[in-house]
Amino acid sequence: MKSKIDNFIKINKGKKVVVVQGLGFVGAVMSIVVANSDANEYAVIGVDLPNRKHVIEALNKGEFPIQSTDKKVYEYFKNARKHKTFYATSNNYAYAKADIVIVDINLDVVKEVGANKKLEGYSVNMDDFKVAMRTIACRCKEDVLILVETTVPPGTSQKIVKPIFEEEFEKRGLVPTFKIGHSYERVMPGPGYVDSIKNFYRVFSGINEESADEVEKFLHTIITTTEYPLTRLGNTNATEMSKVLENSFRAMNIAFMQEWTEFAENAGVNLYEVVNAIRMRPTHQNIMRPGLGVGGYCLTKDPLLASWASQELFGSVTLNQSEKAVSINDRMPLHTHKTITKHFGADLAGKKMLILGVSYLQNVGDTRYTPVELLYDKLVADDVEVVLHDPFVPYWPEKDMTIDGGDNAFDGTYNAVIMGTPHDVYVKEGKLDDFLSKSDNLVVFDSHGVIGDELRKKHTKHEFKIIGRGDV
Amino acid sequence: MKSKIDNFIKINKGKKVVVVQGLGFVGAVMSIVVANSDANEYAVIGVDLPNRKHVIEALNKGEFPIQSTDKKVYEYFKNARKHKTFYATSNNYAYAKADIVIVDINLDVVKEVGANKKLEGYSVNMDDFKVAMRTIACRCKEDVLILVETTVPPGTSQKIVKPIFEEEFEKRGLVPTFKIGHSYERVMPGPGYVDSIKNFYRVFSGINEESADEVEKFLHTIITTTEYPLTRLGNTNATEMSKVLENSFRAMNIAFMQEWTEFAENAGVNLYEVVNAIRMRPTHQNIMRPGLGVGGYCLTKDPLLASWASQELFGSVTLNQSEKAVSINDRMPLHTHKTITKHFGADLAGKKMLILGVSYLQNVGDTRYTPVELLYDKLVADDVEVVLHDPFVPYWPEKDMTIDGGDNAFDGTYNAVIMGTPHDVYVKEGKLDDFLSKSDNLVVFDSHGVIGDELRKKHTKHEFKIIGRGDV
Repeated sequence: MKSKIDNFIKINKGKKVVVVQGLGFVGAVMSIVVANSDANEYAVIGVDLPNRKHVIEALNKGEFPIQSTDKKVYEYFKNARKHKTFYATSNNYAYAKADIVIVDINLDVVKEVGANKKLEGYSVNMDDFKVAMRTIACRCKEDVLILVETTVPPGTSQKIVKPIFEEEFEKRGLVPTFKIGHSYERVMPGPGYVDSIKNFYRVFSGINEESADEVEKFLHTIITTTEYPLTRLGNTNATEMSKVLENSFRAMNIAFMQEWTEFAENAGVNLYEVVNAIRMRPTHQNIMRPGLGVGGYCLTKDPLLASWASQELFGSVTLNQSEKAVSINDRMPLHTHKTITKHFGADLAGKKMLILGVSYLQNVGDTRYTPVELLYDKLVADDVEVVLHDPFVPYWPEKDMTIDGGDNAFDGTYNAVIMGTPHDVYVKEGKLDDFLSKSDNLVVFDSHGVIGDELRKKHTKHEFKIIGRGDV
Repeated sequence: MKSKIDNFIKINKGKKVVVVQGLGFVGAVMSIVVANSDANEYAVIGVDLPNRKHVIEALNKGEFPIQSTDKKVYEYFKNARKHKTFYATSNNYAYAKADIVIVDINLDVVKEVGANKKLEGYSVNMDDFKVAMRTIACRCKEDVLILVETTVPPGTSQKIVKPIFEEEFEKRGLVPTFKIGHSYERVMPGPGYVDSIKNFYRVFSGINEESADEVEKFLHTIITTTEYPLTRLGNTNATEMSKVLENSFRAMNIAFMQEWTEFAENAGVNLYEVVNAIRMRPTHQNIMRPGLGVGGYCLTKDPLLASWASQELFGSVTLNQSEKAVSINDRMPLHTHKTITKHFGADLAGKKMLILGVSYLQNVGDTRYTPVELLYDKLVADDVEVVLHDPFVPYWPEKDMTIDGGDNAFDGTYNAVIMGTPHDVYVKEGKLDDFLSKSDNLVVFDSHGVIGDELRKKHTKHEFKIIGRGDV
């Protein structure tokens, strides 16, 4: 293995060696973006843990491990393979060869949840993250640049990463000339996956001026900074805070609409048309619409990371509103569930329902913390026979289930159909229309407001229940 | 008086009679905008209560009762006087002559506050509003159009206004052919006062199709709808909800930043640069900056109106987040106060401080619910000698105080200067710079982040404490 790394570096002689730590949703794509830099100046080694062997093997065999609708992902990957500028391994020896290490590992929040997913507490365990830092620090080059991209509790680079490097460098008898920077990604899996790295705004900082300068130089070689200028902040706490604030703001804006959704339903108001009217104001363009709930890796945990850091790393305030936002969003699917149970009443058990979409994100196959899960679990617990459909999710890892993405699901007879994820294929591209045409007496539950009046008028034999509309 | 109204209508023969009920910040300007309609088709009578005689007399003498930096206000007023298309009165006989009545009266929330302005409860009293509606209903024309512009609890037009008109029409033996519509204004006192009516988006509705049609027709004659198209919503609950949702959203977004402000200060982060970095994202452009607090007539009460309506008029949920936003915002000035007291410690009593700006709004003289009031009260209670300055507020009605708007205040010797309102005159136009140049050893407290690094570097003999910055 060691010789393979040496060999890879030899092939790429003259290039800087960039090691990407963590080959998940961010690291895998970051790797191939760096391996395709304009000046072709980097040899990229992706490192992941031995238990992620399947990912490493897939990458080295030429199979990109994440399904994506973004063609660029495959182009970039193919190109990196062709020019031999990317190699994946689980061998930590790679860190010894790195000029730059990009940290793209996960950092999880563990939630304590009660009945109906009520958030009763949470904890942040930094142990794995610390081990990962030590893994680099005990073998890296003396003047390595560490670029942390992981979403971390504000304070991490200064209070956790830096001391580990200082400690290990002292043990190794080295002068601490390492550089540590932080720059958060805004990666969105989906049709603009590569562009969400290459063509998007970046915020960065360093633990000192020299570190920040090095990060800046590196980012200029990766990102189209002429169109998307970089923003340098005063210290690493600031960039770390920026990321979790950004996501807390979003989470809170989504959560805010939940009570208004119920109010609108009770007042006979179509909240979608109200939101559209309010969005006419430039200052109010990002007011959110009702929805099934919130999923994904970021909005579901970042506000908690922030509040934890505020209290534990800085002895500052609890971020109550941010914590509350997560709690409200986690439970949001219960509102759609309540709407369904209210409709069927005592007759619910034994009903057969089709859920369209399992992914948490429109037109993307990503099931991480999808809100469909709570709805699914509740309906199954109600003895409802649930059939799932998602063209982007052939396999649902959290449930260890295979999922139909073709047309078989539409051959069944159902009592209800539920919009789980508003993939374009359902409404925009007509699949739901066809299905409604050939079905009888369905109740159609739409938590996303994607079913328009036209479709409703065409299918008067069905009943439509749209969350956030007064006629629900 | 009656004959004066008849005479005014006679002069304006052939024109429709529009009566504006309530001549406050909205009604006064709405009146002169209608009196200046493009087709010159309206004779406008402004009606207010007998205890507002000073306003009525001022208007009829040619003195506009609200100070404004918007020249158009005075142009429009002068023009309406010249063409005799506007007349003010307290005589309810005017309602009998109206083709259209525009309702622009206030509807207050009464807050129960504990120590340090803690919101402990609130109530909405609809009695005055109901009396006002009955005042119109018992004498109006059979086919009058009532356009409610007052910010009301959602449900008001349907559940309160309409029944009153039905009742009074039955008493009067009339066929209920009245029309009732709701369209909320987005009036901003300030340099764009007139334009905030004439050149801005409008949302409207009616209690039935005919009512909505009439409102639409009327609004087209007043507003530049070619550039700012109207939005028609399904029912009056929807437009009433839209207004309070809009303001609740804003209030909540401001409140959300308070905990983050404290976090940033404790983490040594400059929150202003973080916010600027986040605002690069089109979806995050309205994330708010730290501030002294929230004032004005709308954001301080509309979320409570909404939550009250949800519970009392529709038996729906408490809007907890919206209520909480008001509560946080009301207390926000305590953070600036804490920063000041922390700095001076036991030496606070007897210090002399200059507060720059009393108005709640930048470059506008409007003291309604200004957050400066709580800060002022706290400092006075601390035995601080406080001098106030505001070029837009010669008189502070809530405190019955005259305020210096000239340069006398700057001749004193102070221990601290506090940015109360970020009027341009202070930082942008150099008044603070001059003052700092001639003063010694001041502490400068800035809750708005308007003091930049340039000014700080120029005046190193002073100490700067900027809310939301790590160096506070």
